[in-house]
Amino acid sequence: MRVLIALGGNAMTGPGGDASTESQQNAIALACERLADLVVAGHDIVLTHGNGPQVGNLLVKNEMAASEVPPVPLDWCVAQTQATIGFTIQNALGAALRSRGVHRETATLVTRTVVDNDDPGFRRPSKPIGRYLPRERAQQLVEHGQHWEDRGERGWRRVVASPTPLEVLDTATMSALVGSGHVVIAAGGGGIPVVREADGSLRGVEAVIDKDLTATLLARSLAADVLLIATDVSHVMVDFGTAQARALDRISAAELREHAQAGQFGSGSMGPKVEAVLGFVDGGGRRAVITSLDRIADGVNGTYGTVVEPTTG
Amino acid sequence: MRVLIALGGNAMTGPGGDASTESQQNAIALACERLADLVVAGHDIVLTHGNGPQVGNLLVKNEMAASEVPPVPLDWCVAQTQATIGFTIQNALGAALRSRGVHRETATLVTRTVVDNDDPGFRRPSKPIGRYLPRERAQQLVEHGQHWEDRGERGWRRVVASPTPLEVLDTATMSALVGSGHVVIAAGGGGIPVVREADGSLRGVEAVIDKDLTATLLARSLAADVLLIATDVSHVMVDFGTAQARALDRISAAELREHAQAGQFGSGSMGPKVEAVLGFVDGGGRRAVITSLDRIADGVNGTYGTVVEPTTG
Repeated sequence: MRVLIALGGNAMTGPGGDASTESQQNAIALACERLADLVVAGHDIVLTHGNGPQVGNLLVKNEMAASEVPPVPLDWCVAQTQATIGFTIQNALGAALRSRGVHRETATLVTRTVVDNDDPGFRRPSKPIGRYLPRERAQQLVEHGQHWEDRGERGWRRVVASPTPLEVLDTATMSALVGSGHVVIAAGGGGIPVVREADGSLRGVEAVIDKDLTATLLARSLAADVLLIATDVSHVMVDFGTAQARALDRISAAELREHAQAGQFGSGSMGPKVEAVLGFVDGGGRRAVITSLDRIADGVNGTYGTVVEPTTG
Repeated sequence: MRVLIALGGNAMTGPGGDASTESQQNAIALACERLADLVVAGHDIVLTHGNGPQVGNLLVKNEMAASEVPPVPLDWCVAQTQATIGFTIQNALGAALRSRGVHRETATLVTRTVVDNDDPGFRRPSKPIGRYLPRERAQQLVEHGQHWEDRGERGWRRVVASPTPLEVLDTATMSALVGSGHVVIAAGGGGIPVVREADGSLRGVEAVIDKDLTATLLARSLAADVLLIATDVSHVMVDFGTAQARALDRISAAELREHAQAGQFGSGSMGPKVEAVLGFVDGGGRRAVITSLDRIADGVNGTYGTVVEPTTG
């Protein structure tokens, strides 16, 4: 089967989002053991991934070195993380496959994702990124055109646009590479955000794109059989935090949407993941799964995790 | 013809190596006008590029933010520049082609280059990178394992290993993409340096690889017809700075090697370029050219620049 795997940031950093080189390498090595299982099982794999903690570090560097080196915009930061995470995965997956006596070609494609210049996200930036700063420092950055919000005790935090992804570029290239036996790593961090100018050319913009929404778009463009979002919980929960709390296992898209409409998943981390899997199955996808990284092989087979399938009847 | 173009750092920064986002974008936009001419002429193109000023900026950020964010190693810096330069080229080349009424797919591949862990460069780091620092600051970094040298009046400068590239990975992937009509951007900055461990797995190492030597290796692996090194001079000169100074135009590999052995090109910028083109032609390449960016279309055709061809007779 052709499988699109979306790895969460937690799969690529140490405890507490520690994004040191070594922590990233260690976390990615673990993740690649599970990915190698999928490769050995014979699946064709496209891998995408988050980059929140990594971009956070790049923003701190931007700030702290601004007196000496011109800061780079957010789209450049996203690009940077695509490359560092991508080649680290290539090294680690190669090693994990080698220990299983298997060789597969891998490719990391720098990937742009088109968003709408008129997306409401650009008028009302709302996605928090990077570290908290004291008010005085935040206000200096506001004067340089950034948006910062008072988040109370912890300080101020930058908010940026998180526009809806419209098109992942170069999916034909990815499809050709997967077809010729590559494990493809693409659209990291949701893709480098670009807008289309009036003349049709593309321009990078200061934004971050939700990686799970991009994963849905990518899975549909690639005609993937399965979209699997790997996260730090084994199942999507309903009535979380109450005596009636229960894990969702196999569920129809219609039933999951009812839970979403009843406000079960909030707007934090799980809400967008649920929207992403619904978007895939409603768009014709065969199976979408949310589960923990260590069970992705079972998840792809539909035997573990929250397994969402098309509504029948 | 299949053409490997190596763009120098000067083609991608502003005056004085200014590597701000805007300067890089402007310089790359100019370079892509000339690249678009080559595409329109019907050539199949793989593009590689330098990254010196860009890595220099990343090293400054590493240093200045070290109290808050763990610095990343050199191989990560190289990876970062592959992505930022790559997608900026993709945007600019797309626009230049669009203005000519042409569409071609492009792809930026994150690329690793294998070097030998026993390369003498690792024992005697000699490639200067990044900015000059005062002695006191340099010595702190020496205590953290880095190599710095006293460069006199300007201060101290970091030196790193510049090992010989042995193998550019994923060239079969590049070849397939070029064959299917892509302009491929690959092995930026000479490639991300990796060494092969005893068990065969790959590990990134702190080094930078000469991008012109990697270009030669890549051109040979891809069976390119032409290797063109685009730089800031129109021709290689002999007897430079004397009354006998003259530009080399069409020349055999044997004759060029005689000039090199006579010490005409030094160890700075032109010596490695000459070695790179000789390596390509001596290895079976049809034509290697050193010329300025604005004349690459003529250079590829062998009608301008220093055009090196196999020794005959």
